[in-house]
Amino acid sequence: MPANIKHKKKSLKTCRRSKNNAGNLYAVIIAGGSGTRFWPLSREDTPKQLLSIGGREPLIQSTVTRISAVIPLEQTFIVTNKKQMESINLQLHASTGKPWDKRFIIEPEAKNTAPAIGLAAVYLKKLNPDGIMAVLPSDHVVKDSGRFCSALLSASKAASEGYLVTIGLKPDKPETGYGYIKCGKKIKDGVYIAAEFKEKPGKELAKKYLKDGNYYWNSGMFIWKADAILSAFKKHMPDLYAGLMKIEKAIGSAKETETISLVFASLKPESIDYGVIEKAKNVAVIPAEMGWSDVGSWHALGYILPVDSDNNVKHGNIISIDNKNSILYCGNRVVAAIGLDDMIVVDTADATLICPKNRAQEVRKIVDVLKERGAKECVTHRTVFRPWGSYTVLETGDRFKIKKIEVKPGAKLSHQMHRHRSEHWVVVAGTARVTNGDKAYDVHLNESTYIPMSTKHRLENIGRIPLEIIEVQNGEYLEEDDIVRFEDVYSRKTEN
Amino acid sequence: MPANIKHKKKSLKTCRRSKNNAGNLYAVIIAGGSGTRFWPLSREDTPKQLLSIGGREPLIQSTVTRISAVIPLEQTFIVTNKKQMESINLQLHASTGKPWDKRFIIEPEAKNTAPAIGLAAVYLKKLNPDGIMAVLPSDHVVKDSGRFCSALLSASKAASEGYLVTIGLKPDKPETGYGYIKCGKKIKDGVYIAAEFKEKPGKELAKKYLKDGNYYWNSGMFIWKADAILSAFKKHMPDLYAGLMKIEKAIGSAKETETISLVFASLKPESIDYGVIEKAKNVAVIPAEMGWSDVGSWHALGYILPVDSDNNVKHGNIISIDNKNSILYCGNRVVAAIGLDDMIVVDTADATLICPKNRAQEVRKIVDVLKERGAKECVTHRTVFRPWGSYTVLETGDRFKIKKIEVKPGAKLSHQMHRHRSEHWVVVAGTARVTNGDKAYDVHLNESTYIPMSTKHRLENIGRIPLEIIEVQNGEYLEEDDIVRFEDVYSRKTEN
Repeated sequence: MPANIKHKKKSLKTCRRSKNNAGNLYAVIIAGGSGTRFWPLSREDTPKQLLSIGGREPLIQSTVTRISAVIPLEQTFIVTNKKQMESINLQLHASTGKPWDKRFIIEPEAKNTAPAIGLAAVYLKKLNPDGIMAVLPSDHVVKDSGRFCSALLSASKAASEGYLVTIGLKPDKPETGYGYIKCGKKIKDGVYIAAEFKEKPGKELAKKYLKDGNYYWNSGMFIWKADAILSAFKKHMPDLYAGLMKIEKAIGSAKETETISLVFASLKPESIDYGVIEKAKNVAVIPAEMGWSDVGSWHALGYILPVDSDNNVKHGNIISIDNKNSILYCGNRVVAAIGLDDMIVVDTADATLICPKNRAQEVRKIVDVLKERGAKECVTHRTVFRPWGSYTVLETGDRFKIKKIEVKPGAKLSHQMHRHRSEHWVVVAGTARVTNGDKAYDVHLNESTYIPMSTKHRLENIGRIPLEIIEVQNGEYLEEDDIVRFEDVYSRKTEN
Repeated sequence: MPANIKHKKKSLKTCRRSKNNAGNLYAVIIAGGSGTRFWPLSREDTPKQLLSIGGREPLIQSTVTRISAVIPLEQTFIVTNKKQMESINLQLHASTGKPWDKRFIIEPEAKNTAPAIGLAAVYLKKLNPDGIMAVLPSDHVVKDSGRFCSALLSASKAASEGYLVTIGLKPDKPETGYGYIKCGKKIKDGVYIAAEFKEKPGKELAKKYLKDGNYYWNSGMFIWKADAILSAFKKHMPDLYAGLMKIEKAIGSAKETETISLVFASLKPESIDYGVIEKAKNVAVIPAEMGWSDVGSWHALGYILPVDSDNNVKHGNIISIDNKNSILYCGNRVVAAIGLDDMIVVDTADATLICPKNRAQEVRKIVDVLKERGAKECVTHRTVFRPWGSYTVLETGDRFKIKKIEVKPGAKLSHQMHRHRSEHWVVVAGTARVTNGDKAYDVHLNESTYIPMSTKHRLENIGRIPLEIIEVQNGEYLEEDDIVRFEDVYSRKTEN
């Protein structure tokens, strides 16, 4: 991380020279998420921000695109954990054509938003003492990018004056699942002092807020100077601030990573809302309307995908008879639904969810049960994406595993070896270049080859069309971590 | 058919010599069924009577076992269609240890129950002019076999006196889905003249019948002399009778099969209830209680499988949170259900059904949609059983198909050839004896072999444990009917 930040410094100075606010403006995209709310579509390794809902681009990609109109990609950072970094990098590299691995800020463990934001603030202040950070969730939907951008620019201006700015969204229904902010004294046109905060009000209160017209939803989008939020931490979260100062000192030293881990291990989880926003006096609100959804549960699909005349969202191989107000979401498997009302049905290759809409929040409980059972259905999908393509587990036996492997034209897997399994490969599309011990040879459509245990090997698509192979693994241990890597174009340490 | 009937004649005469009614008593099990009511568990090639519901033995097997206490297996015939014959034979051969293929009466096409029963009556009368046939559905549940048997014996006695006997079941709820029979004048103890028939009454009427105590459910179990039902056809269904007489003449001749096909093609579909029972004057009822269910829809699962304290039937890899009065039935895939009440959820490898209990009858509509689409999910399961074992389709591509094939110890597939595909086989359990063109060799665990297109080959399990192989097919046409058979221990003409 320090290395990349030093790298960036040069170009940043160039930007700052323009004396433009935007030159000091950085995006800090918060991409945590445990993959529970959208189970079974989301998994531990495919959290909400990486979902292609209804075939649309992943939410994090839309977020990056939206921000890029105001903030250059080089000034966009992503706070996430180590596990998700590779998938996000893969996604953004593919969509922006640039590697993102130098612009990740890694939380060693999840401690809610305040520590994550604090960590980003420390790095950013080091990078640019006048830096303004726009803290933006990675997994929200914003339909009106233009309004989003102008709110962001107004916020940036107010932030440069020292305010902790939050974007307040005009409610259009008495939602009980969000926090509300009341606008107080006007600072200037379109900017108000935040007068009151209310977390998830009851139905009656939410109706009152909606009618009042002066209450706004807390969007989770915050804009402030790195310096200003650190001052706020000093005042309202002194323990966090002390930890952040330790990290600040360690940045660039050999102890950087270790220090961050130690500090995070000692921190109490805390949200930025509860820890700072609800306490600080210099919080400003910029009310906005931008066609926003936090995509907080399966409900939100009706906001993202089209609904039919019976108010159903239908996606995939659905056979629907007389359903209404329901979300029927599946892939290739047949899902037949009759006479449902206000229901959610979500089907994936290995798991199905059925629940009434008003109990969508309880999906977390299902994920908890799966975790307790050590079940893979909360961790990973049958199809796993890799920088070189993807694989799909077709069948798992006691001592065998069958995968379909797809390799993009020109891509190659790492030069690797397995201690506990041998592999039969049969090519069903394209041509494979195979390195097998000391030999290298091509395997064509309808040909096969065999990779013995403990033999160095590599699979490569030297052709013009996707390569598809069926891999039959035999062995007594068949997990992904049985891999020794000798060389990898994607610089990975573990997994295919 | 004629051949086997002549065979049986000898042993029959021996039985008849005992002057025991049972010697003249034959079971005619009606095993049609289109696999619609229990979709997605039932399919065209796996109708209800072949389902192992909740891991229990298939209903047709229970039916055969139940009958065998009263009627010898050799006097038990099965009326079905050509498509289902092999699966039923396979199932009954495995469970009774005897081949059944000589005791099938094949309907060339489905024309409801009257023609099917008429066809059986003609054969049976030829076999034994005094023959009494117990027409029994293949797919009902009877919990009290003892009472079933005594009802059957009483019925057989009444039938020998010329009555068309039906077993009437004492209702325990005002069911609107069944036909009702009113008992009239007493013929003798436990036997009454049928005074009135009522098909599927409304709720109020059904309640009245239940209270009255003299109305019974029409069980679909009929006992009569072959001669008596043919006389009834002559009177009430003269067209059917005329057709049956043509068939009778053709039996044993070269034109037998052709005649049956021609006659069936000309017949109107008709139920035995509407065509005969509701019109004939000599219908007798034997009231009985035997813990019966016609397993007419997914509802019935609560009668077959245990229910939990919330009145749910749960089977398979279910995660259940706060559900009640529901049927949650699945296999290995995870099915997570929250807050359901009076719902049916049924999940199989390739299809899922969700509907409220009170709309279970509409499952047929789903099957209709699948048929229109030409979808395989109404015809066959991913796993298909064969006399030698089973195969599971793991993946289907444009020009490839992946199967897992399991071969029982000692079993072998036919000596065969494919015109349009080659096959790679990788052994993942057991040892395969492979015939490949002129060569025969063994393929062991973690070894593979290749069968080129248009090459005669055979797969055999010569070992002591089940053989499992992964088959990767490559070709431009990958259907089951691309097979040329040279020799088959199971005398099959098409399919693996």
